[in-house]
Amino acid sequence: MPRAERERQMMDAGVRVFGERGYRAASMDEIAELAGVSKPLVYLYLNSKEDLFTACIRRESAALIAAVRAGVRVDVPADRQLWDGLTAFFAHTAEHPDGWAVLHSQARSGGDPFVAEVVAMREEIVAFVTSLIAAAAREAHGDPELAEREVAGLAQALVGAAEALAGWANGDDSVSAREAAATMMNFAWAGLGNLMAGARWSVPDAS
Amino acid sequence: MPRAERERQMMDAGVRVFGERGYRAASMDEIAELAGVSKPLVYLYLNSKEDLFTACIRRESAALIAAVRAGVRVDVPADRQLWDGLTAFFAHTAEHPDGWAVLHSQARSGGDPFVAEVVAMREEIVAFVTSLIAAAAREAHGDPELAEREVAGLAQALVGAAEALAGWANGDDSVSAREAAATMMNFAWAGLGNLMAGARWSVPDAS
Repeated sequence: MPRAERERQMMDAGVRVFGERGYRAASMDEIAELAGVSKPLVYLYLNSKEDLFTACIRRESAALIAAVRAGVRVDVPADRQLWDGLTAFFAHTAEHPDGWAVLHSQARSGGDPFVAEVVAMREEIVAFVTSLIAAAAREAHGDPELAEREVAGLAQALVGAAEALAGWANGDDSVSAREAAATMMNFAWAGLGNLMAGARWSVPDAS
Repeated sequence: MPRAERERQMMDAGVRVFGERGYRAASMDEIAELAGVSKPLVYLYLNSKEDLFTACIRRESAALIAAVRAGVRVDVPADRQLWDGLTAFFAHTAEHPDGWAVLHSQARSGGDPFVAEVVAMREEIVAFVTSLIAAAAREAHGDPELAEREVAGLAQALVGAAEALAGWANGDDSVSAREAAATMMNFAWAGLGNLMAGARWSVPDAS
């Protein structure tokens, strides 16, 4: 088996064990066993538990960001862009619950260097969402007061809400990725004020 | 000095050091020095680093929940209840940045038993927000489809957005608690759809 393929198997096992147990409680014996290799081979290929955890965080970050970016087309209306990005996000976190646990919860269990990795990933996602909201606001040309600073705050709120809903959906098998995305659109696009008045955001038929 | 007062000083020091350094990197020597007592006295009163951290998490949880509950009056319109709750939340997290860091970030750095403490606190806040949204939806009697399940999702989104904005505001001195609350209302009450069309939520004058 080629080295790249072996490393992928080791990282798959690492994400699973780190996602379930956290950094400190995770055992390299368990990771090696799950990957079907010897523990010395894990150390030979990936050097140390620290390096393996870092590699897992980076791979899962890159995969999540790529999934969201791939989901969004810029030639559609702003609410459709948001819907597409959210459905891509929730589909990815639902399909990769251990990867999501590593990024959202477990990275912090290892301390500072790992926290820095996920902080960098989160900033990249916030910057992407900020650019989407700013572009939509410019196109809508409705509100000259939707300043850069406020857009930054709205993007933080949106990312925080999406993170919380991913945790909610992953903790409850009956909540689908689509339901999480629809809840998010009703919350963030329609707004609670409209929901109270019975005005909902409509899920597009063709997705 | 009475024991209760001494313990309060030790916990103040604990929240500060745990909030800045995390659980493992925090030193009991530094906590004792900051509290102006000997290290053996800290152990005599609070037993262990684990117990001190648990006591800090519980005290900061209880204070945050009490501050939010005290901010909300139930005899005002739903958007005013939300505004009042949010201003109380952001004022508290701004005034207690180390306490907020302990709850939101650092609890996880200590591992499972501490995670369980903050998960319980978060569930209490989500339940409180759920009851507020459900009561508002009942009063508005607009949308019979705003079912219990969807209200639970909206509450998760709201709490996640507020957590993210508290981190944003605490990381940038120029963002006031009031600005964070106003951003949250524009996001969660007015909704991005209205903001794009130039329709904002209005901050009440009398607060």
